[in-house]
Amino acid sequence: MRCSFVMNTLVKTGGAWLVSPSLAAVRRMSVPGFATSSSSSSVPNWEVGVSMVQGASRGIGFEFVRQLLENNTKGHVVATCRNPKEATSLINLKNSFSERLFIQKLDVTDETTIEESAESVRERYGSLNLLINATGILSIPGVLQPETTLNKVEKSSLMLAYEVNAVGPILVMKHMWPLLKAGGGNGTERAVAVVANLSARVGSIGDNKLGGWHSYRASKTALNQLTKNVSVELGRRKDPVVCILLHPGTVDTDLSRPFQRNVPEGKLFTKEYSVQKLLHIINNAKKQDNGKFFAWDGQEIPW
Amino acid sequence: MRCSFVMNTLVKTGGAWLVSPSLAAVRRMSVPGFATSSSSSSVPNWEVGVSMVQGASRGIGFEFVRQLLENNTKGHVVATCRNPKEATSLINLKNSFSERLFIQKLDVTDETTIEESAESVRERYGSLNLLINATGILSIPGVLQPETTLNKVEKSSLMLAYEVNAVGPILVMKHMWPLLKAGGGNGTERAVAVVANLSARVGSIGDNKLGGWHSYRASKTALNQLTKNVSVELGRRKDPVVCILLHPGTVDTDLSRPFQRNVPEGKLFTKEYSVQKLLHIINNAKKQDNGKFFAWDGQEIPW
Ligand SMILES: NC(=O)c1ccc[n+]([C@@H]2O[C@H](COP(=O)([O-])OP(=O)(O)OC[C@H]3O[C@@H](n4cnc5c(N)ncnc54)[C@H](OP(=O)(O)O)[C@@H]3O)[C@@H](O)[C@H]2O)c1
Ligand SMILES: NC(=O)c1ccc[n+]([C@@H]2O[C@H](COP(=O)([O-])OP(=O)(O)OC[C@H]3O[C@@H](n4cnc5c(N)ncnc54)[C@H](OP(=O)(O)O)[C@@H]3O)[C@@H](O)[C@H]2O)c1
Repeated sequence: MRCSFVMNTLVKTGGAWLVSPSLAAVRRMSVPGFATSSSSSSVPNWEVGVSMVQGASRGIGFEFVRQLLENNTKGHVVATCRNPKEATSLINLKNSFSERLFIQKLDVTDETTIEESAESVRERYGSLNLLINATGILSIPGVLQPETTLNKVEKSSLMLAYEVNAVGPILVMKHMWPLLKAGGGNGTERAVAVVANLSARVGSIGDNKLGGWHSYRASKTALNQLTKNVSVELGRRKDPVVCILLHPGTVDTDLSRPFQRNVPEGKLFTKEYSVQKLLHIINNAKKQDNGKFFAWDGQEIPW
Repeated sequence: MRCSFVMNTLVKTGGAWLVSPSLAAVRRMSVPGFATSSSSSSVPNWEVGVSMVQGASRGIGFEFVRQLLENNTKGHVVATCRNPKEATSLINLKNSFSERLFIQKLDVTDETTIEESAESVRERYGSLNLLINATGILSIPGVLQPETTLNKVEKSSLMLAYEVNAVGPILVMKHMWPLLKAGGGNGTERAVAVVANLSARVGSIGDNKLGGWHSYRASKTALNQLTKNVSVELGRRKDPVVCILLHPGTVDTDLSRPFQRNVPEGKLFTKEYSVQKLLHIINNAKKQDNGKFFAWDGQEIPW
């Protein structure tokens, strides 16, 4: 089954693949029904797309996986997480979607696991039409505490938040880039593949009126710059890939739990609601959205 | 001489000093001519201010030290650098300004040296009226190379640029903060102490049209957010401290040398010109400038 799927979805993109020699022959095949850069200049737009949700063990990432599977009759989802064996929600979902869900180990702080994930997707599906980077850390008991004042800023916290929230997603983009050059898919009208990086409104400098949370804020601001930076290159190369930044709203997950007390009535979203809104933005992403920062309601957020 | 200067400039700020017990008695003294938080609510505005230039061995940082000394008949300058013994330009300057220049070891990647510098300034001068963070890295042969494409982005480069360009200045701000609460000085009309962080226009997300230089850009963008973040806290606490971000233009230093080929005629500034312009901004900084990002010509740069 796995092999036949590989046969059905391999796409020759003409992009610069980072491949092991043994696989080079396989990817040279082009498959009927899929646009190839040599046979056609039109961008692929097919139903059976492949989506990767990075950081899918729980929270918003998990909800993306669930909706991508449950709201579509076709399409494959690669759900990555640090500890596949302990990802009980994903394992349960796998019971219902054994053919369409693939669970892959990926820890953004360990680049080897990112490279292995790219290799795994390439072998298994040949391309990727959607990449959602959902991983993010704000507080970790005893390790990372959102700062309430400059006096509490610690180097270790700044570095850790940067490594996970900013460096992680850009390294994932780097290694998935060749796979994304296949373009759109997923049964949408998208002509482009989409990279959606989960940022946060508190990463906006222009919108910063409260201060605090130095490590988290700076890491998300840097993620915004890195994503914008990649969008410029994608645009210049005319790759059929668009990258966008998303603010999900304040969403009821483990991440926001310690800070929900001050959230105004009606402003704490369920994961279901937020992800539904974010998928609407993703599914309608167009070339001109490349490099933009959207809130859950589609409003652009200032840098 | 050193002792008598200490006697003449010690200020009791009432702020939260991080002091060794042996010094506690000394700093309890208040000195005539200096506003103290207990004796007066007016902000000090005196001629003999103390400035710290962090990253002063060469380039723009060194030029700040030179102009602060040569353009003023009074005022003390603490010039910090990683290797005081090898800082030949500073050592030469010390020959002409032995009383007014103090060279202090500070490596932004080693927080102990930042704490030691704060302690040294506190012991020696009691307060600080201006802090310029000039340190910055863009390329280091064999270690850090500005990226021309996403494919060349390396985790080690992202982390190193962040550590030096973003984390470094914020840790310096953290440890100097108690000293800065004394407010303005330096013979200017400033009612406030100033923290000026050297950023770069390429750190602007809104202005990013070229892409590339991922590590450097993201680190400067993060520095912008961290500085803005601190400015919010300073404003809320009503501390007589203002922090601003400065883009010096493209300046003829070691940092820009490998990249000067494409600089348009007349757009490559001398250090002398750029620092003169930046000092004009610093000397005229007001409360309402807190948290702003200025180019050498005083124009605000978008985030
Ligand atoms: N919730 C909100 O209100 C809110 C608001 C604004 C922005 N966001 C952003 O939305 C995204 C999702 O947040 P969430 O609320 O769903 O958070 P969450 O419930 O805390 O989930 C965080 C996810 O990140 C994963 N993760 C942590 N470190 C990782 C690493 N080194 N490598 C790979 N994965 C790692 C976690 O995996 P493990 O299970 O292995 O720990 C988990 O799956 C984040 O980027 C967050 O910053 C959330
Ligand atoms: N030149 C430009 O065109 C330009 C444009 C925009 C922004 N900027 C910014 O302006 C600032 C000054 O740049 P520049 O052109 O003067 O650069 P430069 O000539 O290369 O000088 C850099 C300075 O940073 C110091 N430094 C490096 N690593 C350090 C560390 N770990 N701890 C403490 N100090 C360290 C260096 O000290 P050592 O001598 O010990 O190496 C040196 O004094 C930087 O923040 C830069 O990003 C410059």
